[in-house]
Amino acid sequence: MAPAETVQIPFLTAAEALTPKLSYTEERPKDVVTFVPDDKAFLRHTKVVQYNASRLEDKWFSSGDEFIVDFGGHRTGYLSFYLDAQGENVDCPARLRLTFGEVPGDVVEDFYPSKSWISTSWFPHEEAKIDELPGQVNIPRRHAFRYVRVQVLEVSSKFKICFRKIKCYAVTSACKKVAPVEGCDFNLIDTVGLRTLRDCMQTVFEDGPRRDRRLWLGDLRLQALVNYVTFQNNDLVKRCLYLFAGLRMDQKVMASLYERPEPRVSGDYILDYELLFVVTLLEYVEATNDISTGRELFGICQNILERNHQEYIKDGIFQMKPGVWYFIDWHDDLDRFASMQAVFVIAFKAAQSLANKLDIGVDYTEDIRLLSEGSLALYDEDKGIFLSNGQISWASQAWMGLAHVLPQEQHVRAIQIAMQNPNAIRANTPYCYHYVLEALFKNGARDACLALAKDYFGGMVDRGADTYWEAYREDDSTFSPYDDHHNNSFCHAWSCTVSWFLRL
Amino acid sequence: MAPAETVQIPFLTAAEALTPKLSYTEERPKDVVTFVPDDKAFLRHTKVVQYNASRLEDKWFSSGDEFIVDFGGHRTGYLSFYLDAQGENVDCPARLRLTFGEVPGDVVEDFYPSKSWISTSWFPHEEAKIDELPGQVNIPRRHAFRYVRVQVLEVSSKFKICFRKIKCYAVTSACKKVAPVEGCDFNLIDTVGLRTLRDCMQTVFEDGPRRDRRLWLGDLRLQALVNYVTFQNNDLVKRCLYLFAGLRMDQKVMASLYERPEPRVSGDYILDYELLFVVTLLEYVEATNDISTGRELFGICQNILERNHQEYIKDGIFQMKPGVWYFIDWHDDLDRFASMQAVFVIAFKAAQSLANKLDIGVDYTEDIRLLSEGSLALYDEDKGIFLSNGQISWASQAWMGLAHVLPQEQHVRAIQIAMQNPNAIRANTPYCYHYVLEALFKNGARDACLALAKDYFGGMVDRGADTYWEAYREDDSTFSPYDDHHNNSFCHAWSCTVSWFLRL
Repeated sequence: MAPAETVQIPFLTAAEALTPKLSYTEERPKDVVTFVPDDKAFLRHTKVVQYNASRLEDKWFSSGDEFIVDFGGHRTGYLSFYLDAQGENVDCPARLRLTFGEVPGDVVEDFYPSKSWISTSWFPHEEAKIDELPGQVNIPRRHAFRYVRVQVLEVSSKFKICFRKIKCYAVTSACKKVAPVEGCDFNLIDTVGLRTLRDCMQTVFEDGPRRDRRLWLGDLRLQALVNYVTFQNNDLVKRCLYLFAGLRMDQKVMASLYERPEPRVSGDYILDYELLFVVTLLEYVEATNDISTGRELFGICQNILERNHQEYIKDGIFQMKPGVWYFIDWHDDLDRFASMQAVFVIAFKAAQSLANKLDIGVDYTEDIRLLSEGSLALYDEDKGIFLSNGQISWASQAWMGLAHVLPQEQHVRAIQIAMQNPNAIRANTPYCYHYVLEALFKNGARDACLALAKDYFGGMVDRGADTYWEAYREDDSTFSPYDDHHNNSFCHAWSCTVSWFLRL
Repeated sequence: MAPAETVQIPFLTAAEALTPKLSYTEERPKDVVTFVPDDKAFLRHTKVVQYNASRLEDKWFSSGDEFIVDFGGHRTGYLSFYLDAQGENVDCPARLRLTFGEVPGDVVEDFYPSKSWISTSWFPHEEAKIDELPGQVNIPRRHAFRYVRVQVLEVSSKFKICFRKIKCYAVTSACKKVAPVEGCDFNLIDTVGLRTLRDCMQTVFEDGPRRDRRLWLGDLRLQALVNYVTFQNNDLVKRCLYLFAGLRMDQKVMASLYERPEPRVSGDYILDYELLFVVTLLEYVEATNDISTGRELFGICQNILERNHQEYIKDGIFQMKPGVWYFIDWHDDLDRFASMQAVFVIAFKAAQSLANKLDIGVDYTEDIRLLSEGSLALYDEDKGIFLSNGQISWASQAWMGLAHVLPQEQHVRAIQIAMQNPNAIRANTPYCYHYVLEALFKNGARDACLALAKDYFGGMVDRGADTYWEAYREDDSTFSPYDDHHNNSFCHAWSCTVSWFLRL
């Protein structure tokens, strides 16, 4: 039997009512630029400013001409311009190619051929044929970009075109002005984080405004955390919780969902993400004191825990099953057993806290005890670290640290030992890195956490990030979970949590 | 000094008020087809029906797949479809290429590289990126087509797409139902003519709905003639006359103009077209008895004649000047001197008739006498034909025939002698062919005219025309005035006049 979609209309109706109003801001490009290949630059290119973008008003272009505008910062929005045309005879349409760049490689490197295993239809280019010249051109698709490469593919030889009043109507549901963190040297690092979250906050928390433009449960938790201490659009978190609650499949809260054309789940299910629904709801209730939402959705948390406990836990030990997606990180070599064990502990503890807060009489004490015991069995006392089927990884230490199965200082030490081990499986994404940082923080190592955050996120900024990237390895700017860095997202909300740590 | 545009607002206001309401009709495709290369077929391909287009509802497509739908006939309109998507996960946009074919070559031959000297931006293809799936897709650009090739360029491997409810919203301002010609074996030939005019009749008489989508004065005269005896949207003729009158440059009525984004002239000026403005106005007044419009625009006719007489006529003889566009036909080798001489006679005679009808006291008798004498000087009594700088052409005989400078039977004979001469410069376009036919008709050779029309237009129908083509040479389907047949228009209103002859 095909899995049944469990659509709960009241939850969807609640979500619909919480759809935020988007704010639109007009942004003008700063410069017309080129990029010079540069082996020494992390992003492989160095920008050269050609002239101020206001001078485009005097530039006339023919077939084969092109230019790149730099908006000076990343935005999610809609491109528009007035396409002027002058000459002996404006006698045909103009065919343009527009390529939207979050990073320089987007606008100067060839997309094809590609080895990407996700669809190349994500590549941020499109053709526009403009029939009526001169005239206003509003590109109807939303894009995420700092740079736009404009190529004049075909016009006639009888006229030239001029791109006037190029603009981006930047769009977001993050409307509140956020104060910078007082007395800290993280200002730019924080700004990049806030910008990242702002550009992902639309009518849901999108993972990335370029790709997938989709609400993912694992990403939601991190975005929500940052949101509570910055933009405080808490109804957007609530809306997303109701969407996940309203669109389950075979009772499962799925890993991601789409809003349009109408809300629906994707086919993706990720066990650790589903367990994090419980944590996300707890944190929402803690941030808002919205007890009624907590009560309304607590039944789903119970279902998540009890169903998955029955399916995956035997004698307090997580049982890996083939064909199930455990995310933890984008890393081919990572053994996820220990991390998953820890996620179970975390979810049960969160549910217990939530039940206590909501005054609901459930008692997971025994489950927590058994799962914690199972976790401790993975701890190698001699080495001072958790092993996952013998493997040492940052992720295992991080998740166990958040499960709090040992005294704080031992968790901190486990993380530090793993990070100092060159053979350990490291974090490939800011998502996984976040959990390393959070585990340090929550185990009392605030300074170590911030130093590491400064090093990591500051490193991304130093290497050219306007917004934080979905995937980041300091040693390889072309690393991609999708086998092609052109399909990476360079404004990815799961990477914005430095702005949370700075405000704790 | 740059030529000044003489914009006459009252004329433009009158034109604006006459903008017709367009009718929209929903058309469904008939079949899904392929084309097999065929040396024996005039259009180089033979159509093979694969299945009824209704079966597309059951077909699912992936990256690299494609199909061609055949709407069963030519329409000008807007393509739309519901793009369904199903699979494990509908996780990315769909990138499509759409190619709109008036003839088979459009959808199965490569457009690039092209030798066309007019812009290749006219090639009828475009890319569409659809972000929200499943969903309704309305292609915003208007196209002219019978066939649509749909290529699925990029989707992910996780889902397939299905094209449901493919439609064309066909659009025209030719709304009147036209009765077929009684008792004639020209029915199909007439139908193709009516369809051609219908698809060119929009908010102006366009030359071709695919290219140039523009109001040309020379084309207007022929469209207006057919319109008076068929669709009878006479206000559309009036609107076009006012547009030309309202948008002159240095007093000249220009050859063509654009409606959008706002009415404006193109840079093209054609002397013979300007002179035909007088003929077009006369015929409009004759068809409608709209004396007031005739009076309002007669001053422009006087200006056309007197200005051009002063500039081009010396002792009753037309003086060719370099750098001026005399159209007559798309033919590189045609000598246009005799034709232009005749056009002057025709225009002066038309102006005299119009003045008489409008009761305006002008007398062009002496001009007509001198121009006619000048015309007769080109007549070779021995050969029985008009020579243009020694050259024999169909065009010279046709235009002289309409100038009526000889007895009717001598004009008919001149045309027939030229047409029988294999070395004569023949007609390359239905525009020029029209004037051969009209000259036969107006000189009493109705049967010869209709026989030739049947042969010529019937030949186009036999060779696969759904609508009449802009350029047609029976011996070469790839003949193009633009050095690339892919830039020809295959629904071109100047080719629809057979439907006028049949109703005279």
